[in-house]
Amino acid sequence: MQWKIDASEIIPPLGFQASGIHSGIKESDLDLALIFSETPSIGAALFTENSFKAAPVQISQKHLIQNNGVVRAIIVNSGNANACTGKTGLTTALRMTEIAAQLLNISREQVLVCSTGVIGVPLPLDPIVTNSDYLKQQLSPSGFQTAAQAILTTDTGRKVCSAISNIKGKQIRISGITKGAGMIHPQMATTLAFIVTDISITQKLLYKALNEACRLSYNSISVDGDTSTNDTLAIIANGASNSPLVDNEGEHYKNFLEGLTQVCQSLAHQIARDGEGARKFLTIKVVGASSETNATIIARKVSNSLLVKTALAGEDANWGRILMAIGNSGVNFNSQGVSVFIGDIQVCKNGEGVPFDERKAKMILQKKEIDVTIQFNDGNASAHFWTCDLTKKYIDINAYYRT
Amino acid sequence: MQWKIDASEIIPPLGFQASGIHSGIKESDLDLALIFSETPSIGAALFTENSFKAAPVQISQKHLIQNNGVVRAIIVNSGNANACTGKTGLTTALRMTEIAAQLLNISREQVLVCSTGVIGVPLPLDPIVTNSDYLKQQLSPSGFQTAAQAILTTDTGRKVCSAISNIKGKQIRISGITKGAGMIHPQMATTLAFIVTDISITQKLLYKALNEACRLSYNSISVDGDTSTNDTLAIIANGASNSPLVDNEGEHYKNFLEGLTQVCQSLAHQIARDGEGARKFLTIKVVGASSETNATIIARKVSNSLLVKTALAGEDANWGRILMAIGNSGVNFNSQGVSVFIGDIQVCKNGEGVPFDERKAKMILQKKEIDVTIQFNDGNASAHFWTCDLTKKYIDINAYYRT
Repeated sequence: MQWKIDASEIIPPLGFQASGIHSGIKESDLDLALIFSETPSIGAALFTENSFKAAPVQISQKHLIQNNGVVRAIIVNSGNANACTGKTGLTTALRMTEIAAQLLNISREQVLVCSTGVIGVPLPLDPIVTNSDYLKQQLSPSGFQTAAQAILTTDTGRKVCSAISNIKGKQIRISGITKGAGMIHPQMATTLAFIVTDISITQKLLYKALNEACRLSYNSISVDGDTSTNDTLAIIANGASNSPLVDNEGEHYKNFLEGLTQVCQSLAHQIARDGEGARKFLTIKVVGASSETNATIIARKVSNSLLVKTALAGEDANWGRILMAIGNSGVNFNSQGVSVFIGDIQVCKNGEGVPFDERKAKMILQKKEIDVTIQFNDGNASAHFWTCDLTKKYIDINAYYRT
Repeated sequence: MQWKIDASEIIPPLGFQASGIHSGIKESDLDLALIFSETPSIGAALFTENSFKAAPVQISQKHLIQNNGVVRAIIVNSGNANACTGKTGLTTALRMTEIAAQLLNISREQVLVCSTGVIGVPLPLDPIVTNSDYLKQQLSPSGFQTAAQAILTTDTGRKVCSAISNIKGKQIRISGITKGAGMIHPQMATTLAFIVTDISITQKLLYKALNEACRLSYNSISVDGDTSTNDTLAIIANGASNSPLVDNEGEHYKNFLEGLTQVCQSLAHQIARDGEGARKFLTIKVVGASSETNATIIARKVSNSLLVKTALAGEDANWGRILMAIGNSGVNFNSQGVSVFIGDIQVCKNGEGVPFDERKAKMILQKKEIDVTIQFNDGNASAHFWTCDLTKKYIDINAYYRT
């Protein structure tokens, strides 16, 4: 089964609406979004592993459990993370679900809530209360584009992806929006991501597919090694396509998983590409490793090394730093069997440098997308990780974010 | 017993000489150093835990074992790390010990060798061979100042420390030189450091003291989270002070450990202060933790967070990022018992923000030295970590280091 992927616009699945508005949490940008399934639907979500879980994360986790995964809507604000805000923060997050529930005539337990922005500052409810009617009026199938805009913080542009395919003649759609540029590090879900689909699937399989797709996408990107207090990756499926119910791990499940993984990877890559201050999109490929776990640990370590990321920002084929990072991974490997390729140019063989054409390397390093391949002689396992270079603009953005 | 500490100059212990010269490995700066004990002496050393151990590290480790810790000299070059250089690199490192041994009329197994600089480029022997006689001629007790200069790479200035005290009326000295500004992360010894002392002590206790002092100094600093392939912390003791032999863990050992720890801390702090691009010296104190291990893990996580380090570079009291980093440590703690102080201003209490005077906070953050105290309600354990802020200059230095 083939999926038609479109990373430029949202093709809304049947029965879904969304809206995005300016409520006043931010000074002038869009800052409040609502996603709604018109028909009964189920949901699944993955949350941050940070010990300081933001209030909306705590409320969403509770609602998912209380309601056995029946999810009809997601309300999201940007500009304030409602994290480390104590009991008041929890009340605010709960009120947000109540406001959405009232607007949509559903129960509050069917609503997930997410926030993103500054940590530790009380989130004002007034802008949300005052503008809730307008938020509802704006709901429409085409509203995902403005919703995608309303969830952004330091992102330079909105991040969307849609996938279309069919099951037994019924067209099905998977569409997602996401945000994130900093505080990005793989642990459960990283950042905020909302995916809707009109496939018909059991809640158990929906959760399973989300987990697997997340591992190969959101859990394989890094911008700066920091994990947010608010990370949420949520999916709602409403079966509005009238496709046959996916209730076992057979062909239809595998096809759905394939499409969901492609959507999640597209969204996750858009985050790495838009890493704060990033000018280059880096793919770190590890092959020939002794296990997938080891391959992932090494790929992550290289992706997080400041010295590797600054060397690539400087378009410098400084492969010694790549070996340094590999050597710090804590993984056992045959160090005399390590080769490194920048693009298709081999720069290191058997743990030692090999002569290479510096001009050709420079041409590869000047591109916007750079592949680094690290080849071990220890087995057949591999892993991919996606990250960005580290530039002075990252410092600019983060030294003066709050004030 | 009191130690008189001097971090501005080297007071050479009795019976030691050193020299530093320009050999041509670097274009124009000093790049070759020699440290020599005139009388029989013992040594101990801690090395990098990176899997890619540089050739000089491998040779030094072998010599220490072969010679039961009898060490008379250390030869060091900067400008080239002789790391990831294969068999040729090992031959070069071995030749360096032979050259030094011949100059000093000792066996090569009594010589340690260290290199620092770019990784993966063959280290030329010619400049060392050609200039070895000059290196020997320059040996003198006052030569430690030029030796301290000759081991530097991206450092902005030399880093030295001396401590003087006495045991039973005999004056003893501990003096050290160190280098390091980037690729600094605590794991065994970080960076290069050479310490000489004229105390009389057994090899076993010398090693034990070095380990303990390292834990509280070199293993408690971080600049960028990357661990070099060449890290070495070495000490030579020659007993030339004629002080009574320290052969048990009694009072004299404790006193020596105290002095050695102070010297190592002074040197390590000089590295954190001189972190690449650093403008501020940050002390991260964790108190009230459930165990010293947990306190250290948390202090390290906060010290390594790019978002914390950039916020402090921007003089922004963004304590939410500190909580975010704590929450990512993987340590279990009572999140409602966490307080954060910037200087003496409390910015977070019981895991929530408290109102504070932003102007006062700004005044503290504008200083060159900032203390961040993280208080838990879980026990009595504490830990200190030292790091620096992350500025645009770090990117400048590291994006274009090799070329």
